[in-house]
Amino acid sequence: MPMQLNRRDVMRAMVSGAVSLAFAQGTFAQHGPPPGKIALRFNENPYGPSASALKAAAKALEMGAYYPISITDDLLNAISTKNGVALENMVLSSGSNEALQAAFVAWGKKGKVLLPALTYTDHIAYSIRMGVELVTVPLAKDMSIDLEAMAAAVDDGVSLVYICNPNNPTGMALDGDLLRHFCRTVGKKATVIIDEAYNELTDEPDYTSMIDLVREDENVVVMRTFSKIFGMAGLRVGYGMARPDLASIISGHVMAWPNGPGLAAAYASYNDDEFIRFSRAKVIEGRNMVNETFRKNGIEPLPSQANFVYADIGRNATLFQKRMNERDILIRGSFELYPNYSRVSMGKLEDLETFDRVFTEVYNS
Amino acid sequence: MPMQLNRRDVMRAMVSGAVSLAFAQGTFAQHGPPPGKIALRFNENPYGPSASALKAAAKALEMGAYYPISITDDLLNAISTKNGVALENMVLSSGSNEALQAAFVAWGKKGKVLLPALTYTDHIAYSIRMGVELVTVPLAKDMSIDLEAMAAAVDDGVSLVYICNPNNPTGMALDGDLLRHFCRTVGKKATVIIDEAYNELTDEPDYTSMIDLVREDENVVVMRTFSKIFGMAGLRVGYGMARPDLASIISGHVMAWPNGPGLAAAYASYNDDEFIRFSRAKVIEGRNMVNETFRKNGIEPLPSQANFVYADIGRNATLFQKRMNERDILIRGSFELYPNYSRVSMGKLEDLETFDRVFTEVYNS
Repeated sequence: MPMQLNRRDVMRAMVSGAVSLAFAQGTFAQHGPPPGKIALRFNENPYGPSASALKAAAKALEMGAYYPISITDDLLNAISTKNGVALENMVLSSGSNEALQAAFVAWGKKGKVLLPALTYTDHIAYSIRMGVELVTVPLAKDMSIDLEAMAAAVDDGVSLVYICNPNNPTGMALDGDLLRHFCRTVGKKATVIIDEAYNELTDEPDYTSMIDLVREDENVVVMRTFSKIFGMAGLRVGYGMARPDLASIISGHVMAWPNGPGLAAAYASYNDDEFIRFSRAKVIEGRNMVNETFRKNGIEPLPSQANFVYADIGRNATLFQKRMNERDILIRGSFELYPNYSRVSMGKLEDLETFDRVFTEVYNS
Repeated sequence: MPMQLNRRDVMRAMVSGAVSLAFAQGTFAQHGPPPGKIALRFNENPYGPSASALKAAAKALEMGAYYPISITDDLLNAISTKNGVALENMVLSSGSNEALQAAFVAWGKKGKVLLPALTYTDHIAYSIRMGVELVTVPLAKDMSIDLEAMAAAVDDGVSLVYICNPNNPTGMALDGDLLRHFCRTVGKKATVIIDEAYNELTDEPDYTSMIDLVREDENVVVMRTFSKIFGMAGLRVGYGMARPDLASIISGHVMAWPNGPGLAAAYASYNDDEFIRFSRAKVIEGRNMVNETFRKNGIEPLPSQANFVYADIGRNATLFQKRMNERDILIRGSFELYPNYSRVSMGKLEDLETFDRVFTEVYNS
C-alpha cells in the first residue's frame, strides 16, 4: 500500500530529499496546488485570505526587514480582547501545529499524553520523534470521540489529554456541554487541550468552544488557527488561550516567531466579520455539495462540522485516491485503522462541481 | 539597571503581558520601528527585502490559502544547488534561530553545549528553559572567540560546540583556516555548529564559511539566514547545511513550517546577485560611517565584519542607550559581562547621518 503522507511528512521528506520535486511539476516558484490539479486534500480553504488580509500583509511585506514586534502585540491584543481573556492567557505560534507540538513535548516530560485513536496527527509524528509517550483510546462505534472511555483512561500517569473538536479526519463535533463536563472532571487530574482548528465552521461555534473554561481558570488549553476559516494555511499563524501558568509553559516551548505578513493578515482578518460570514457560508455550501455527492452514490458520510467530509466508501481509500489523482483531483487516502474511509476537503464551489462529476464516474466505473 | 531585552525576550514578555503595548505607540498594525524612531538595535537590514523578493512574496500571498509545499521544495533545491550540497544536507526553519534552538535541544540530550561567554543569545535563553547544560569559555583578550581555549574545553561531556562567525555582538570574524582546523580537530569529539548569519557581509565570505567542511562530511553544521544581507528579518526564513545524519536530527527537532511569502521571497532573493551586491555595499558603507562616528569621538570600535559595530564607549552602555533613546535613536545597551560596550546596528545611510550627529552630541554633553 502506498505511504500515506501528511503535510508535515511531505516537508520532512523533502528536506531529506525523498520526494524532491515530487510537487514542483517542473514549474519553479509555483504556489498552491500542482498545476492542473484540484486540491481537496489538506483542509485548506481557498476562499481566503480575505481582501483585508492581503492588503495588510502586503504592507507588512514592505517592512519585512524588521522583526515583527508591534504587529505581534497588536494581534495578541485583538485576540485577547475578542475572547475576554488577558494577554497572560495568550499563546502565539507559527501555525497551531507548532503550539500543539510544544504542548505535547512540555507535558510529555511529566507523563503520558492521551488521545483518540483516530485524530489529527501532524503534531503526533513530532511527539513520537521527541519520545513523548502516547496512549490512544478507540473511537466510539459511531466514530465520535468516546469521552467516557477517555475519562476512564486518565490514570495518574497521564499529564495531558488531547481532543480535536470537531475531530479530524471525521469532522464530527462533540456536544459542547458534554465536553465541558469532561474538561471540568478530567481537568482535576490532567490538562485538557482542545484543538478548535475548525470551531468557526461548526453549527454553534460559541457553544462548541471551551473558551469559557479558560476564562474560568480551568485546567484547559484552547488552540485555534488562522489556517482554516481565515484561509491562511500558507501564512502560518496559530494561537492558543489558557490559564496563565499553562500558557506560559506552551509559549516557553514554542520555537519560532511568526512572520510579519502572516501576523498582519491575521490581525486584519480577525475582526473582519463580513469575510468570516462569507468564508463560513462558502465552506458550508461546499460541504453540502460533497455530502450530496457521497449520498447520490449511496454513501452516507459522517456528519461533518468542519471543512472536510469523511465517509466509508466501501473500498480501499488509498487505491481510490490514486484513481482520483489520475483524474487530477487530489483527495486523501486511508488513515491508519480505517482503510475504507476517504476524506475530501472543501475547495472552490466550481472545483467541487468537477469533483462531483469525476467522483461519480470513478466510483461507478 | 534597566533590563536588557533581546528580540525574543520582547516577544515572550508581550505574550506574558509584561510589556504589552510598549512598542505599539498607539498605532495599530504598525510595522517596523516605532514611529519617529531610528532603529539600530536588532541587526536588521533596511535595504531589504529586494524588489524581486517583494514581487514573489506578493504572488505567494495570493495563494496563502495553501500550505507552501512546492515553494519549499524550490527553495531547498536552489540553496543546495548553489552550495554544492545535496537535499539530504539541508535544514529549513522559520528563521535560523529556530534551527539553532532545535540543535541545542537535540544535542543537549546527549551532553553539554560549549559556547563563547559573549555571543548571540536568543537561542540560549530557549535552551536554558529546556534544561540544556551550557558551558561558556571567556573571549580572548582582543574580544575574539578564543579557539584554543574552546578546543581545550571540549571534554567527553561536550556534545555540541557553538561558534557564531562573525560573532555577535562583537562583529569580529575568525580566520577561515584557523576555524577550519578547529572544526576538523574538535569535530572528532563533538559536533561544531557554525552560525554564519552574517557571512555574506564579511571581507571574504567563501574563505570565512565552513560550507566546504559540510561538503567533506565533517562533523559540522553551517547555519544561515535570510534575515541579514537579504533584509528579511520579518519574514522568518533560515536554513542550515550539514552531513545528512546531523541535518536529519535538526530537521526532526524543528517545530514550525516556514510561511509561503517568506519562502517565495527567499527563493527570489537567493540568486539575485545584483541585490546581494547592493545590500552588501550599503551595509559596508554604513559600517564605515558608524566606525567613523566612534573614532571621531575618540572610541576605537572592534573590527566588525557584520552589520553592527561594537565598541567600548568608556561608560555604562545601558545608561547611554537610554539617553540616545530619548533622542529617538534606538541602540543596544550593555551585554552581560561588558557594561561599557555599546552595539549599533546598521540603518539606512541617512539614518546613520542622524546617528552620527546625535551620538556626537549626546556623547559630549
